Amino acid sequence: MSTATVDNGVNVQALLDAREVLKGAPEAAQFKWRASCRWQNGTHSQTDVEGFFGLGQEQHHKTETSFSADHPEIFASQDKGITPIEYVLVGLASCLTAGVASVAQNRGIQLRSVESKLEGTMDIRGILGIDSEVRNGYDDIKVTFKIDADASKKDIEAIVAQSQKRSAVYDVITNPVNVVVEVA
Amino acid sequence: MSTATVDNGVNVQALLDAREVLKGAPEAAQFKWRASCRWQNGTHSQTDVEGFFGLGQEQHHKTETSFSADHPEIFASQDKGITPIEYVLVGLASCLTAGVASVAQNRGIQLRSVESKLEGTMDIRGILGIDSEVRNGYDDIKVTFKIDADASKKDIEAIVAQSQKRSAVYDVITNPVNVVVEVA
Repeated sequence: MSTATVDNGVNVQALLDAREVLKGAPEAAQFKWRASCRWQNGTHSQTDVEGFFGLGQEQHHKTETSFSADHPEIFASQDKGITPIEYVLVGLASCLTAGVASVAQNRGIQLRSVESKLEGTMDIRGILGIDSEVRNGYDDIKVTFKIDADASKKDIEAIVAQSQKRSAVYDVITNPVNVVVEVA
Repeated sequence: MSTATVDNGVNVQALLDAREVLKGAPEAAQFKWRASCRWQNGTHSQTDVEGFFGLGQEQHHKTETSFSADHPEIFASQDKGITPIEYVLVGLASCLTAGVASVAQNRGIQLRSVESKLEGTMDIRGILGIDSEVRNGYDDIKVTFKIDADASKKDIEAIVAQSQKRSAVYDVITNPVNVVVEVA
């Protein structure tokens, strides 16, 4: 298959060009991603995402997006949004999926559909403080991709593996990140 | 201050009751959180969250919520949603905030406002594959709370510290989680 006919909607050339430019300009590669959160009531909060810093200057998304989070009714909450821990799955799913599209484009493989199911197991005795041996977060997360593409199963598996290897969210979940929490 | 007059909208008694019940029923504390993602085009994807498993049975959010993710225009993408790595900040902000409200309620402290700013630093030479020594995800995340409450600075700091100690998303980001990615 000729790569010229492949179009997954990813501008791989721009990414390869950016890679060349940033090789010689490491300071432009320093990004800061931001969010602002405001408590509503109970366990309900609203988080806004709009601006970030990168390529040496302030940047903006086309629009500011606001996200509701809450706990479900079975936790005696109002379920005014998905739970915080589910947002982690949204990030992981979308990161791996963007990677699959980018890697497939780079390898000249046309995608027709990319679907994934994610499931994270969690023992809530951790967050309830019942057993200090039980962690608060996920024990395990399983991601299952179903991909329809002009490629062999082996090539599809290799695309997914490469996406995983370059995924920012996969890295954050599988490796420790330093988090500092302060009160102003 | 009397705790009877404090109302942050969190039903602490229900949580304390749940803790007692789940102490004797660890199998009911096993939760499975889920998400389904569908590639749209380019780096744009749509992730749906609706059902989960807990208390021994299938559970449902009041409504199914769908989340767009994309890369920004400076990455030659269409910016049809926030980036996957920003969803991690949404999860962290909302988890810590729900914790602050719950802990304050349990300690009889009335909250008036809880705001937080999050900033995660990331060197994108990692995801671009420029330097294998650079990680893909966040190097550091800083969370700054601004809280107006009927309490001393010291008591407010103690609430935030306890929220951190019991936060599922904080745990996932600061400690490794086992993630398995498969192709069906």
